Amino acid sequence: MYRTHTCGELNATNIGQTVTLAGWLQRSRDLGGMTFIDLRDRYGITQLAFNMETNADLCEKARRLGREYVLQVTGTVIERASKNSKIPTGEIEIEVSDLNVLNAAKTPPFTIEDQSDGGDDLRMRYRYLDLRRNPVRRNLEMRHRMAMLVRNYLSDRNFLEIETPMLIKSTPEGARDFVVPSRMNPGEFYALPQSPQQYKQLLMVSGFDRYFQIVRCFRDEDLRADRQPEFTQIDCEMSFVHQEDVLDMFEGLAKHLFREMKGIEFDKFPRITWHDAMRRFGSDKPDIRFGMEFVELNDVTKGHGFGLFDGAELVVGICAQGCADYTRKQLDALTDFVKRPQVGAGGMVYIKYNADGSFKSSVDKFYDATALKAIADKMGAHPGDLMLILCGPAMKTRVQLCALRLEMGQQLGLRDPQKFAPLWVIDFPLLEWDDETQRFYAMHHPFTAPKPEDEALLDDPSRWGDIRANAYDIVMNGCEVGGGSIRIHDRTLQNKMFHTLGFTDESAAAQFGFLMDAFTYGAPPHAGLAFGFDRLCSIFAGADSIRDFIAFPKNNSGRDVMSGSPSPIAQDQLDELQIKVDLKG
Amino acid sequence: MYRTHTCGELNATNIGQTVTLAGWLQRSRDLGGMTFIDLRDRYGITQLAFNMETNADLCEKARRLGREYVLQVTGTVIERASKNSKIPTGEIEIEVSDLNVLNAAKTPPFTIEDQSDGGDDLRMRYRYLDLRRNPVRRNLEMRHRMAMLVRNYLSDRNFLEIETPMLIKSTPEGARDFVVPSRMNPGEFYALPQSPQQYKQLLMVSGFDRYFQIVRCFRDEDLRADRQPEFTQIDCEMSFVHQEDVLDMFEGLAKHLFREMKGIEFDKFPRITWHDAMRRFGSDKPDIRFGMEFVELNDVTKGHGFGLFDGAELVVGICAQGCADYTRKQLDALTDFVKRPQVGAGGMVYIKYNADGSFKSSVDKFYDATALKAIADKMGAHPGDLMLILCGPAMKTRVQLCALRLEMGQQLGLRDPQKFAPLWVIDFPLLEWDDETQRFYAMHHPFTAPKPEDEALLDDPSRWGDIRANAYDIVMNGCEVGGGSIRIHDRTLQNKMFHTLGFTDESAAAQFGFLMDAFTYGAPPHAGLAFGFDRLCSIFAGADSIRDFIAFPKNNSGRDVMSGSPSPIAQDQLDELQIKVDLKG
Repeated sequence: MYRTHTCGELNATNIGQTVTLAGWLQRSRDLGGMTFIDLRDRYGITQLAFNMETNADLCEKARRLGREYVLQVTGTVIERASKNSKIPTGEIEIEVSDLNVLNAAKTPPFTIEDQSDGGDDLRMRYRYLDLRRNPVRRNLEMRHRMAMLVRNYLSDRNFLEIETPMLIKSTPEGARDFVVPSRMNPGEFYALPQSPQQYKQLLMVSGFDRYFQIVRCFRDEDLRADRQPEFTQIDCEMSFVHQEDVLDMFEGLAKHLFREMKGIEFDKFPRITWHDAMRRFGSDKPDIRFGMEFVELNDVTKGHGFGLFDGAELVVGICAQGCADYTRKQLDALTDFVKRPQVGAGGMVYIKYNADGSFKSSVDKFYDATALKAIADKMGAHPGDLMLILCGPAMKTRVQLCALRLEMGQQLGLRDPQKFAPLWVIDFPLLEWDDETQRFYAMHHPFTAPKPEDEALLDDPSRWGDIRANAYDIVMNGCEVGGGSIRIHDRTLQNKMFHTLGFTDESAAAQFGFLMDAFTYGAPPHAGLAFGFDRLCSIFAGADSIRDFIAFPKNNSGRDVMSGSPSPIAQDQLDELQIKVDLKG
Repeated sequence: MYRTHTCGELNATNIGQTVTLAGWLQRSRDLGGMTFIDLRDRYGITQLAFNMETNADLCEKARRLGREYVLQVTGTVIERASKNSKIPTGEIEIEVSDLNVLNAAKTPPFTIEDQSDGGDDLRMRYRYLDLRRNPVRRNLEMRHRMAMLVRNYLSDRNFLEIETPMLIKSTPEGARDFVVPSRMNPGEFYALPQSPQQYKQLLMVSGFDRYFQIVRCFRDEDLRADRQPEFTQIDCEMSFVHQEDVLDMFEGLAKHLFREMKGIEFDKFPRITWHDAMRRFGSDKPDIRFGMEFVELNDVTKGHGFGLFDGAELVVGICAQGCADYTRKQLDALTDFVKRPQVGAGGMVYIKYNADGSFKSSVDKFYDATALKAIADKMGAHPGDLMLILCGPAMKTRVQLCALRLEMGQQLGLRDPQKFAPLWVIDFPLLEWDDETQRFYAMHHPFTAPKPEDEALLDDPSRWGDIRANAYDIVMNGCEVGGGSIRIHDRTLQNKMFHTLGFTDESAAAQFGFLMDAFTYGAPPHAGLAFGFDRLCSIFAGADSIRDFIAFPKNNSGRDVMSGSPSPIAQDQLDELQIKVDLKG
C-alpha cells in the first residue's frame, strides 16, 4: 500500500504517530514561513504542513505543486494550531518529512469543489473529474449502500438473485427494443431486455418461489428529460402470493430503506385506487406531501349563466390556503402557467376569499357573493384562501389541475425534498384505449391479471375500459418508484387476454410461445414488482434528476460525450455481421 | 399467501397443527386404501396422505392428479407410520382435508428427478422444467449465496459497487464486440462491454479508491465448448496499491468463500511465476491437486543415437507412480491420446520401471538399463512407476505434455472435484508475439504495467518478448478463475506501450483518448482483478461445465433454443435503425 491511513481517519488519538498518506491536492495555502496543503481522498481531507524554516527544500517542492496532483507523503501527526471542527481530521495535521509526487495533473477545467461544477456540458465531458466532487461521489456511495440493503433484505427473506440473459428475443410489443445483430446467425438479432419480465415468470414456473435481481434494462425511446436508454431495476417476483402479500413484502423493503438510510419510521403506507387518485389528485402518482385535494364543483357552479362552466363535463378546483393576497401579476402568471402547451388548459378561474369575508373572483359577473360562498363552502375554503378552478373534459381537466396543484405546492414550499410521502396506488385499469391505433393496450403488460370480480367483463368489449387489474404502483413524492401486478397463471385466461389485445393465436405464439408453453407445465400463482432503482436513489437523496445517481449517464440524444459513444464502426465489423448502414438521408 | 408453511419445514414439533401447503406433485402412490402424494417446492418435499375410508371423494380427486400439477392443500400434521430419515420432513405427513388444484400440468417431457434430465437438447428446450430439478436448482442457490458473500466481503472492506454502462464505445482491440445500432444517431453503434476495464480505471481517476461490480460482459467469439457470449465477472479495482496488496485482498476473498461455502481453511496460496508454471506443468493454469511435475531430460537422453531426442529442443517427461503395469493397450491408448490433433504430439516414449527393478521401454534399442536408470533417477522414479516422455520444440512439447499429465491425473483419480488447489500465477509476459499478424499483442490488455525492473526493455524491440508484466492470475484446479494486473498510470509509459502495440498516436487517441486524457488530470497508481463468476461457481460445485450455473444459457451457436433467440426482426425495426441485412449468401 502507498499509505498507512486514509485522509479521513486521523485524529487527536494519532498524535505523535508517523504515517503515510496518499491522495489529491485539494488546495494549497502559502503563508510565508509555512505552506499548508489539503490532501483529499474518498474518505476525507487531511492538512499537510510544510515548514520553510525546518525544511526549506521540501517546502519549496510543495509550493510548486498544482491542484489535483497525486501525492504520497510521510510525516508525523501533530496537533493543529487552529482546529477545524467541521471535519473529523480537523484537530490534527501532518508535519511532512517526505513528499513523493505520484502523478502530475493538468489544471482541471473546473475546480473540484462542492459548488463548482463548470456547467452541464463540462461536467459530462469530464465526468471522471465531476465524480471527484463530494456531492456526486456521495450519491454513488449512497446508491451502493442502498443496493446492499436491498440485497440483504431480500436474501434474508429467501429471495434468490438469479441473473437473466441480456441477449434475448425481440418482442415488438411495448417500447422499442435495442437490437444486437448476431454474427453467428446472420440476418438474426438479439434484443436487449426492457425488463426480465418473461424470464422471471419462467423462474416462477421453475419453482424458484422468490426471485430478485438488480438488473440493467434498456429502452430505445426518444429520451425525455431524465430518461436514460439504460436504467436499473430492482426486479422481483414471488409465487403463491396474493396482492396483499406483495404489498406487505415491498412496503417492508421500502420501510427498511427509510429506516436504515434516513432514520425515518413509517406506519402502514396509505393506499388509494387509481380512480380515486385521478379524482382527488388528477394523477396516478399523487404527491401527498401536501393536501390541496381536488374538489368537484359541477353542482355549485352550473346554472349561473357562465357558459364555460355550464358546458363543461367537469368543473374542478383546488384551494390554496392563505393565498387570497395573491397579486394580479401572480394570478396572471398562474393563468399563463396552465395555458402553456405542456399543461394545455384554456384558462383559469380564481376566487379570492378575502380575509374580511368578501369575495373577489374572475367570474364576479356570473356569481354573486352567495354563489361564491357556496363554492367556498364546498371547497372547505376559509377567509384568506385562494380558490383556483379549471373546467373541461373530465380526465384532461384533472391532469391540467394536477399540474397547477403541483406548481402551487412548489410555490408554497409544500414539496420539501427531505420530507417523504410514500403510498400505494392500486386497482389500475387493465386496458388503456389508444385513439391513434384505435385499440386497447395493456396498461402494464399482457401478463397482468384482471381483478377476479372483473374477469367476466373480458367477454364484453364495451366494458373493457372498466376492467380493473390486480396491479399496483408504489409512489413517493409524486414519482412512481415501482410497480407490479398479479400475473395471469392460467393459460385460458392468458389466451383471452391476448385476443383482447389484438393478438392472433399465431402472433401470440410467435412472441410469447415459450412462456405460454411453460404455463401448461404447472405454473404457480405468482406476482411481482420492480422498483426503478435510479429514481429510488434520487428520491432518497431529495434530488430531482436521476443522472447524478448514475456514474456515467448518457445525454438526451443517448450519447456519452465523454467516450464519444455511439460511434461509427469499421467496415469489416459490419461485413462480419452481414449488415449495412442504410441512411435515409 | 396460498400457504402457511413451505414443503421443507414441517417436522414432529408441528404434529397436530392445521397447515396449508402449496407446491408441485412430485409423485403419487396409490396403495388401495390410501393415496400418498409427495408435494414439492423449492424448500423440500412433504408427504400428503389421502384416506379412502375417511374421505373417499377427496381421495378419488387426488388419484386423478398428474405429475407436476400445482396443488394447494390444507390438513393436519400427523406422525408418519414409516418414517423417512433422509428428508427433514420425514417424520410427518399431512392428513389432507382440503385439496385445491391451482393449475394442471401436461406430462413433462422428462421426469423432474435428480438423475433424469432427458438429454441436453430437451433440457435446454424446456429449461424451465430442467430448473425444477434439485441439482440444477441447487447450483443457482449456490450462485446466489456466493454473490452475496462476495458483495458483503468487499463492501465490508470499503469497496463500492458502481454500475458502469452497458452501451459503450466499440474498440477493435481485443475480442470481437457485440454492437448495437443507435436509432437516435443513425449510422453509429454502441458496443456491449467485454469488460468494464476503462470505466473502472476512470473510477480510480475519480478517486473512488475501491470499486467492484458483479457485471455482465459480452464477447462475440466463436464459442468453444463451455464459453458463453454473455458471462459474468466479479470486477474489482483498487487505488494506491502494490501487487502484494491486490493478491492479499483477493486471496482473502477466495479464502472467505472456501470457508463459508465449503468449510475449508487455506494457508497462504502458493505462487508460481508464469515461466515456472510453463516449465513445471506446461500450462499457465496448472492443476496442482497432484504432482507429476515435468522433468526435463535433455542431459540424460541426448547422445544415445535416438534421433528424435537428439534433434529435439526439449525432451521432457512425467512419472506416473505405480503405473508400470500398464498394458500394451493402455499405452497405445495414451499414444493415441497425444497424437490426437487437439494435442498434436508426434508420438510418446514410455519407460516402465518394473517392480523387480528392470526396465521396459519403447526405446530399448537406444537406451540400455544404465541409461534408463539415469533417466529414472532424474525423474525420481521408483520401481513400479511409468515414465512418459515427449520431445520437440520446447513450448509446444510442454503444452502437449500438459495434456498428457492431466489425462493421467484423470485416469489415476488425482483430480477429485471436491478437492481444491488454488494458486497464483504471477509475472506473466507483458507481450505475446502473433505469428499470423507478425506483431506483438498485449497478453492482458494495453493498460497492464510492465515490472519496473523490465521497463527499460521497452526501448529494445528484440527484448519485447522478455518483458514481464505486473500481471497475475488466480488458478484453481487447472482453471483460470481470475486475473488482473497493475495498471499503467503514467501517461508517458502508456504512450510507449501503445507504440509497442502498433498504435499510432491517432489510433490510440481515437480508441482510448478519453482514458488517456483522464490520466493527465491526476491518475493514482491502481490495479485490479476480475474473477470469472460462472467458472468460479462451477469449480466450487466441483462441476466441469459453467452452463448449469447460468439460469438460461446459450448453446454453441449462441442460440437460446427455448426462446428461439436470436431471430429475424421486423422490417420497420430495421428501417428505424437505418440498417439493412446484407447476407453474403
